[in-house]
Formats: sequence, structure tokens, C-alpha cells
Amino acid sequence: MAPTTAYSIGVDLGGTNLRAAAVDRAGQFLGKQGGSIRLREGRESVVSDIVASIQALRERFGEQECAGVGVAVPGFIRLKEGVVENSANLPSLEGFPLRDEINQRLGTPVILENDANAAALGEKWLGAGRDVDDLVLLTLGTGIGGGVILDGRIMRGRDGMAGEFGHMTVIPNGNPCGCGNTGCLEKHASATAISVMARLLQLGEMLTAEQVFRIATEGSGEDAIKARRIFELMGVALGIAIGNLVNVFNAPLYLLSGGPLPAWNLFAPTMIAEARKRSFTFRSTGTRIEKALLGNEAGLYGAAYLPFLEVGEPAGV
Amino acid sequence: MAPTTAYSIGVDLGGTNLRAAAVDRAGQFLGKQGGSIRLREGRESVVSDIVASIQALRERFGEQECAGVGVAVPGFIRLKEGVVENSANLPSLEGFPLRDEINQRLGTPVILENDANAAALGEKWLGAGRDVDDLVLLTLGTGIGGGVILDGRIMRGRDGMAGEFGHMTVIPNGNPCGCGNTGCLEKHASATAISVMARLLQLGEMLTAEQVFRIATEGSGEDAIKARRIFELMGVALGIAIGNLVNVFNAPLYLLSGGPLPAWNLFAPTMIAEARKRSFTFRSTGTRIEKALLGNEAGLYGAAYLPFLEVGEPAGV
Repeated sequence: MAPTTAYSIGVDLGGTNLRAAAVDRAGQFLGKQGGSIRLREGRESVVSDIVASIQALRERFGEQECAGVGVAVPGFIRLKEGVVENSANLPSLEGFPLRDEINQRLGTPVILENDANAAALGEKWLGAGRDVDDLVLLTLGTGIGGGVILDGRIMRGRDGMAGEFGHMTVIPNGNPCGCGNTGCLEKHASATAISVMARLLQLGEMLTAEQVFRIATEGSGEDAIKARRIFELMGVALGIAIGNLVNVFNAPLYLLSGGPLPAWNLFAPTMIAEARKRSFTFRSTGTRIEKALLGNEAGLYGAAYLPFLEVGEPAGV
Repeated sequence: MAPTTAYSIGVDLGGTNLRAAAVDRAGQFLGKQGGSIRLREGRESVVSDIVASIQALRERFGEQECAGVGVAVPGFIRLKEGVVENSANLPSLEGFPLRDEINQRLGTPVILENDANAAALGEKWLGAGRDVDDLVLLTLGTGIGGGVILDGRIMRGRDGMAGEFGHMTVIPNGNPCGCGNTGCLEKHASATAISVMARLLQLGEMLTAEQVFRIATEGSGEDAIKARRIFELMGVALGIAIGNLVNVFNAPLYLLSGGPLPAWNLFAPTMIAEARKRSFTFRSTGTRIEKALLGNEAGLYGAAYLPFLEVGEPAGV
């Protein structure tokens, strides 16, 4: 069947930046539009910036040929209403009917999606998950988010809150979390957790995860041993969580993305050993834990895939 | 659209018993056929017993009107091949193409399913989950199994091994498990775990979960306090696991079934408190943790629903 439309537009809203890209059905990148988000000037400025970047791409590549727009947002999405909730980075959009507002201004189908969910979909479409139907993505940053793809589609949960892996309990009496729990994964394995462990081990008061990584790989003596130990412990926490996820989903592929990925060789050995130990499904089914491939582009590509998935025929891979 | 067939047959294979039931599209129970499984006489006897019970129902209710047969099996199912794996209770069926064998002998569509998955589907169709699209079931017995329904269908996992909740890690350095892990949920919250805790607390060497329940509810003094403490700890372990599942799935309903259910009032308070503490999704979305309603019949009904779901039009609820 011939595709009815030539391309779609993905938008990735960050806390300070906005990126938009036009992508065709085959996943070919056509063009990009970037910009800052004028957060302090309020909601109307934010919405205008989003609309302007979409419109610029539509004028470049044709309004008729555009299948629609997918927007990846850092927050929970009430899908039916097209409303953003709990977005710490974009407070001005809180509770705002963003989908319908963009739709009305541009007259094109608009789909909102949580940014980690969009990233998981992007990896499925064009990244590390191209060869599987089901995958689980963990996004490592200041916190830990996640997305689940089952049978090629995003598992959203009833309220769009599925995939909150950062708040899975990995150590019941572990570090306290702002969510009210103790021992959340993100308090033991995020970039923030790496900084906290560096402080506990007296490596330094205000080290970033990247600085701890440099001590681990370029430093020497006790400091380097401590820094490597931090990544080993991060791996253990991730392995407990991923072992649980394997027991729950029996998916073939678990992906990690985000800032700490360059430290893969430091945390992956304990992560994989722990997941193996804690999941006979992992051991008996050839389960893979791998790096995501698309980096920052995953959410953008996933967002662009949404109109193909929801509005037209599914795109070829 | 008028239903094309009047009823289907569900079969539930236990370790010693076989039950079969004819159920119509509206979920009305038409008739039942029971029997023992002659395990020691080998595979041919087991298969003959299954076929005979199905055939008895078909003769009673009409061969033409039968949409097909669903068989709930304690083990993993390789769905594409229709083969049973890892069935400790039915070793003679291990690796055997049970689906095709029954199909050839009777000439009717046959679908195999894991028993906990079938039970989850049964609860969705006719039990505690009638009003939701997504639910998670935990089956408490000598071990702990589970099933997940998403959008009205069973989440099977790539190898039919999804929903292995009994082996989720709830206490990383907890009790050792035969699977190779420590701190598996079923080592802290199953009927077996209750017996073990009773022994550790010197309540008795060989108490069953039911005996511990009786001490907790009818006993007095230190023994009753100890017995109640055991169910509280069971609730904590279940709450950690369910909190994680809520963070993962954001489903509206989590169900428990099995032998320890009469002790609900003893373990539910700590279970619910723990899940609340460990999941902001639980606290913010009106998530429910409830008793399953169909008891032993859940798997039988779920098995009977499979042919309607897979072969014909979905049945009305």
C-alpha cells in the first residue's frame, strides 16, 4: 500500500531547549529546527515557540505531505485529553490542553507523549531495538525514567504513568527519596546518586558523575578504587531492577541511555552479574542488556514516529 | 454481529486433577467434567484423559457449536509451537506438542496457556477485573505466580515467561531461593514462607500456613502475637513487590488469589501501607489491591475464554 503522506514532525521539549525534526516513513531524517524555550515569558511564548518550529518545517517540506506532529514532553500525559501533568521542567504547561492548542493553530493531527516513552519508541523504530517487538528502556540522568514497548507499541498505563523505573524499590531500607520511599533505583544508580556516593566516600563534596568517571578511569590509588566501586554499586542497583523487569516482562532487550553511558564498562559487569543471578528467565532465554543507540535523538525520532503509528498506516522499518 | 458459536471448553490441568467446563459467550457455565490425571501411567494416559473429558462435553453440548478448547497448564508455554515447558507437575508433557495432539484427535482449535495467565484472564472476563482493561494477578501458593492483562489480553513475554512475580527480588539479601537468587518474593510471602517463618519463630516445626493462621486468629499470648507478625511480614514483602508493579504498569487493579487469602485481614494492612509508601503512582491514581473473586475457577474460565478471544469474535462481558 502506498504511503498517503511523506513525512511527519517530531518535537522534543526539554527544560530549556526545543528541537523539531522532519522524518520520512523510512526513518530518513529530512531536516531540523531548533530553538530555546522562553520559559520565563510564560505559556503563550512556549506555545508560540513550539508552533513556530513546526510551521517552519511544514513550510519547508509541504503542509499536505505532513502526516502529523508528535511532541515528546518531560511529564505525564493524560492521553485522552492531550494534557501535560507533573512536568517539573515545564510548569507553565501544567494542566494545559497543549495538544488541542497546537492542533487548532496548525490544523494538523498532534500526539503528545512522555519523553522516555518516545525515546523507547525511537529506539524500537530506528535504534537498538529495530529487530525486536518488545523492549524496555531505562533513561539515566539526574533521575531515572523509562519506557516499555510491547508488540511495537508504547505501554502507557491507565494514567500515562507506566515505566516509572526510577522509583522501583531496589534496596528496601536504602537511600531516602523525595517521593516518600527509601531505596528507589534512582537514589542508587542515577547521575545524582553517583555524586552522592562520591561525597559519602569523601572523594569530593560536589563532584559530577562525569568527574567521578574521570577519577575512576584516569586517577590512581585509593581514589580510583573508590570511584570504580561507586560504578560497581550503581551496576548492582541497576541489575536488581533489571532482573525484576526481566521476571515481569520476559522481553528480549533491555536498553540504557543517558549521561552515565560512557561509564558502561565500569557498571555493566556488576549489573549483568546481578541480573543473571536474580532472574532465571534472564539466564534461560538469551536476554540482552545493551546501550541505546540514538542518544538525544531517540525522543525526537520516537515523537516523529507517533503520527505514523497512530494516524496512518504503520511505517516500514 | 451474531455469535458464530455457542460455547467453548476450558480445561484446567493440575498436578493430580483435571477439570473441564463448557462456558457460553456470556460467561454462563453450562456443564463440567472432572477427573484425575493418571500421571504414573505416562503421557498417553494423560493425553487420553484430557481428550476424553473434552469429548464428553462436546457430545453433551454439540460438536458444531464448540468454538474451541483452551487448556490451562502449570508450566511455560511455547505459544507458536503449542508445547509445554518447565512443568514440574506434569513432567510427562515436557516438550510434548500437546496442542497439536489434542487438535488432531478432536479436530477442534486448541490454545494452551500458562495457568496463572489463564486465571488473570478469567478474573478479567468474569471476576474482580470485569470493569478494567488492565490488571495484574498474583497467585499465592507453595510458590507465587502471576499474570498480567493489558488492554484485555494476556501479556505473555517473548518466551511465555512474563509475570514471574514469585522471583522478583524484594529483599536483596533475603532468604535463599532454589532459583539461585536471594530475597525472592515467594521466599517471603508464599504459603511455604509462612511455614518457614513459623519455624524461625519457634511456633512449630511443621506448621502449615493454615495452622499459623489459626494460631493468629484463635490463639492467645506470645504465640498469637508471633503468628500475626508473620502475616504482617508477608504483607510487607507483598507490598514491596506490588509497589514496584504499580510503578512499572500503572494498572488500576492488582489482585491476589490462592490459599492464604483467608488471612487477608492479617496481611493486607502492611501490604497496602508498604505499596502506598513505595509508589507515588499508587497514592495519586486510585490504584486498588483486591481479592480475586473466582478462586479455583479462574483458570478454568480464563481457559474457556481463550477460544473466544483468539478464534472468534471477542465475547461480550
